[in-house]
Amino acid sequence: MDRKAAEIGALANENETQQEQEQVVNPWEVSAKDGGKIDYDKLIDKFGCQRLDPSLVDRVERLTSRRAHVFLRRGVFFAHRDFNDILDAFERGEKFYLYTGRGPSSEALHLGHLIPFMFTQYLQEVFKVPLVIQLTDDEKFLWKNLTVEECRRLARENAKDIIACGFDIRRTFIFSDFDYVGGAFYRNMVEISKRVTCNQVVGIFGFIGEDHIGKYSFPPVQAAPSFPSSFPHLFSGKDNLRCLIPCAIDQDPYFRMTRDVAPRIGYHKPALIESLFFPALQGETGKMSASDPNSAIYVTDSEKDIKNKINKYAFSGGQDSIEKHRQLGANLEVDIPIKYLSFFLEDDTELEHTKKEYGAGRMLTGEVKQRLIEVLTKLVERHRRARAAVTDEMVDAFMAVRPLPNMFN
Amino acid sequence: MDRKAAEIGALANENETQQEQEQVVNPWEVSAKDGGKIDYDKLIDKFGCQRLDPSLVDRVERLTSRRAHVFLRRGVFFAHRDFNDILDAFERGEKFYLYTGRGPSSEALHLGHLIPFMFTQYLQEVFKVPLVIQLTDDEKFLWKNLTVEECRRLARENAKDIIACGFDIRRTFIFSDFDYVGGAFYRNMVEISKRVTCNQVVGIFGFIGEDHIGKYSFPPVQAAPSFPSSFPHLFSGKDNLRCLIPCAIDQDPYFRMTRDVAPRIGYHKPALIESLFFPALQGETGKMSASDPNSAIYVTDSEKDIKNKINKYAFSGGQDSIEKHRQLGANLEVDIPIKYLSFFLEDDTELEHTKKEYGAGRMLTGEVKQRLIEVLTKLVERHRRARAAVTDEMVDAFMAVRPLPNMFN
Repeated sequence: MDRKAAEIGALANENETQQEQEQVVNPWEVSAKDGGKIDYDKLIDKFGCQRLDPSLVDRVERLTSRRAHVFLRRGVFFAHRDFNDILDAFERGEKFYLYTGRGPSSEALHLGHLIPFMFTQYLQEVFKVPLVIQLTDDEKFLWKNLTVEECRRLARENAKDIIACGFDIRRTFIFSDFDYVGGAFYRNMVEISKRVTCNQVVGIFGFIGEDHIGKYSFPPVQAAPSFPSSFPHLFSGKDNLRCLIPCAIDQDPYFRMTRDVAPRIGYHKPALIESLFFPALQGETGKMSASDPNSAIYVTDSEKDIKNKINKYAFSGGQDSIEKHRQLGANLEVDIPIKYLSFFLEDDTELEHTKKEYGAGRMLTGEVKQRLIEVLTKLVERHRRARAAVTDEMVDAFMAVRPLPNMFN
Repeated sequence: MDRKAAEIGALANENETQQEQEQVVNPWEVSAKDGGKIDYDKLIDKFGCQRLDPSLVDRVERLTSRRAHVFLRRGVFFAHRDFNDILDAFERGEKFYLYTGRGPSSEALHLGHLIPFMFTQYLQEVFKVPLVIQLTDDEKFLWKNLTVEECRRLARENAKDIIACGFDIRRTFIFSDFDYVGGAFYRNMVEISKRVTCNQVVGIFGFIGEDHIGKYSFPPVQAAPSFPSSFPHLFSGKDNLRCLIPCAIDQDPYFRMTRDVAPRIGYHKPALIESLFFPALQGETGKMSASDPNSAIYVTDSEKDIKNKINKYAFSGGQDSIEKHRQLGANLEVDIPIKYLSFFLEDDTELEHTKKEYGAGRMLTGEVKQRLIEVLTKLVERHRRARAAVTDEMVDAFMAVRPLPNMFN
């Protein structure tokens, strides 16, 4: 799984003509039409999911008696499938479980990688539900030029960053595919595989004949955690339990496939709550790429790195000269500091004030960037401290195949 | 895995025209050209394996200080890949391991099903080597209309028949894919999957776009046991151990694929020793089919069943009238009683005598059938007694994931 809330057009682009004509969004490639911005409305149409409208956010607030998470209030999680059914069930006193994951291909996570985990941590906290986190080290081995052992090592390293997001060990099971696939999980993989044709995965994921069969085999691995019986140590006898998947919208193809199969093998369709992509520093048309460390802020960046990157690379919507800026104001639509602040600045009033002042030309780019540097430095520093406190024993504990007797309490 | 040493054209034949033109041999379909006999020479050519010539049989006798098994002496195991390398290694004092298997799709095995197990038991006994037996319950689930639970149940039932063939529990590990796939075995599956393209499995196995991805995913499952690291409880640190696979020649496609991958992931290519198909009672052009109980002798058949089936259905090469038979003799090439005797009558002298007398018209079909009934009744009776003695505890013991400290002694 590569639930990157991040990379716009991150992969090599071999088919320029096609790329320029249509936006491409799948788990391995996100690229906008003609180098422009992703058209999320079109994506919702094409994928057939639903807009997450403000009334649903209100409902979450009512049901949880808590202010909605910034990512909900600001439309970062902007689309869903059957999220209302999850809320209906919750309102009736029924439980559900959360499922998210990560493809561990790099040592250091960037801010985009943190988004689904920060949000999932919130969901776990307010709904008090169990969570399974899949580390698709097998996927990364299949798609990248890495050894099995390197992928397993990265899975454990990434698990530390994930644990640092504050998950509750009484309700959280983290697993690596290379270690956990087998038994009931494998049986579900095979049940799913039997119900998806080659033509279907070609249509959904764009595989070609020259692709290795590892790619064709993988989608059921990401689908299986959507079914409670894949986790007999957690959900034995609870085949009716619903599953909610927070992820970036590029993962939707996996779960469209999963939702098609679910009722045919006796399970609820998993519900989804889906986020926008987190833009690169260079702007929403840029690429946030592992091969370009200056395209993103990493959780391993120092205060100096953060300051440098934002001052040097964060695309500004401000005008070329102070005079022009005072006159016309900043173009907030393309301004990366404002985008980033809208993801990570908690204070709604301050954000609105900043947008207003900056948009009117009364604030300068430098001031906005300065505020962003403060916010991100604090966030990254907090993450670094939390990660440093994660021991190997804690990783073992989160990844132990064990019952979670208090997961619903 | 469906290492049927048995079914000729067993599967539904939807493409009559193509069938009539060419023989088709793959793990799920064996059918001769124009309803004739399988052309094994052509098969050896097409598959690129080697004839197992008498000098190799002599060498086995020398190395093991034992008379070669009937199936070797009579050319039932007639083809191989690198079997000479296995013998070279054995002569140098190196060890190897055996790998065979079965797709558990039916409750009762027929005689054809027993052939690879009878032969593997002999190999284990004379070479004193460990053996892994894969029960591909996942394959049967993917290809047949059975539930996962039914396939797992059949795997255990079939394990009893396999154990009844006399395997040495100190050297034998039997496993069901649905139970055993995972960990090191899964990691090898993924290593293999990464090195086989979709086009390749389409070419090797004839899959089509409408086939489900379970089919595309399966070949690495059957390939993985060829590599010692798939069994860390047995072969930890012995990645250099060679593997010998006794099977019917319809399984060759799996292992051609496996042999192509092996050196690319650091293992020896598995060696093969491959058998003819066991013919149906109705003749080598007939079908030995699970849907027609009269096409085969089952290990569950009573003495009366065996007598009836052979007298009524076993295709005779004898002449229409006694007079004509005395004059022309039997056509041994098409005579099923003689074929069956050549598989199961131990006594070479008696077999030669019978063939001579019958071929010359001095013996009648009835007499030959009578002798076959005796031989098979004894074989089936012996199997039935052995199987009745196999307890559930013994099945558990053979299938336990455990080290085998004495497997090479």
